[in-house]
Amino acid sequence: MAVHKPQLRGAKVSKKIFSVTVAELARVGLERLSIPEVARRAGVNKTSIYRRWPTKEALVKAALGESMEHARELEDTGTLEGDLHGLIRRVADFIESPRGGAMVRLAFVDSGSRSLRRHAAQAWSDAPGAGPFEILARAVSRGELGPETDFETLLFTMAGAILHRRFVEQAACDAEWIARVTRLMLRGVAR
Amino acid sequence: MAVHKPQLRGAKVSKKIFSVTVAELARVGLERLSIPEVARRAGVNKTSIYRRWPTKEALVKAALGESMEHARELEDTGTLEGDLHGLIRRVADFIESPRGGAMVRLAFVDSGSRSLRRHAAQAWSDAPGAGPFEILARAVSRGELGPETDFETLLFTMAGAILHRRFVEQAACDAEWIARVTRLMLRGVAR
Repeated sequence: MAVHKPQLRGAKVSKKIFSVTVAELARVGLERLSIPEVARRAGVNKTSIYRRWPTKEALVKAALGESMEHARELEDTGTLEGDLHGLIRRVADFIESPRGGAMVRLAFVDSGSRSLRRHAAQAWSDAPGAGPFEILARAVSRGELGPETDFETLLFTMAGAILHRRFVEQAACDAEWIARVTRLMLRGVAR
Repeated sequence: MAVHKPQLRGAKVSKKIFSVTVAELARVGLERLSIPEVARRAGVNKTSIYRRWPTKEALVKAALGESMEHARELEDTGTLEGDLHGLIRRVADFIESPRGGAMVRLAFVDSGSRSLRRHAAQAWSDAPGAGPFEILARAVSRGELGPETDFETLLFTMAGAILHRRFVEQAACDAEWIARVTRLMLRGVAR
């Protein structure tokens, strides 16, 4: 079999294929995503893709798994308020990126593969990884948070606020808005 | 021109057409929504639709405008906590309905009409209508909230939490979860 572009570059090739896959997912959606088109845009032979990811579901799962990695590191600002601000900024930047947009699209669109939708949802929930929990552990050790704090509700509610801001309000996650959400999360509204 | 099913029933016919439109939107999405198919399922002649809503964008806008009406009334439970619980329940029920699902799909999917996406987002933001603001005004008059409370951030963040719960976590908005979100909104996490 004549493979015109042999797989010599390994990880670099995968990275390129994943990045094209995610861009295509954001551009045309899962249903119209085509492996030959991904191959063409990535400059590889389509057999190089089919050999490792025989279906587009497999390819998309691999590409999405990769795409969350960059969101994990978070700066220690020394206060919970500063750290939450940084976390919201980071998640907002992610969902405004093509990769994040593709994940959100998969999670929210009813058409397409159910297992893939579940996978996207899982990847998104796991996305912030250890980072946010470190932030919260630091706040507990400084005495800003009690150890009984409901971290999951806090993190998921912040993520939901970002989704609503970006897709429903269709407004920017600017510093003033982040400050308002952070204040609500820290203090609540009750007198 | 032979119109086999004349428009005699007025509002009742519109209601049926809107309900079929919303169901079709949830089933096949905007791109594949077809006015002849809506007409067939609603049991009306397609010219009855084209005459009033010449494009599917116009039809969907009209149908979505209608679809938020039922979400407006909210019970007075006598406490802010009880009222917020009821509000979250109401919004969660709405987004779990075919109509709500169709709105969310339009707001989150990149394909299709940009103006319609904006319309869905607007309708969603307006959805709770006067209801939630009455809840908050009652809480201010009881002294549970200060008049300076950031109502918008509170309401939008709760809506975002529901979207995240339903579409990302893919979990039920049950009473225990609603209690956790309500507690976070009221008290925040800071010590």
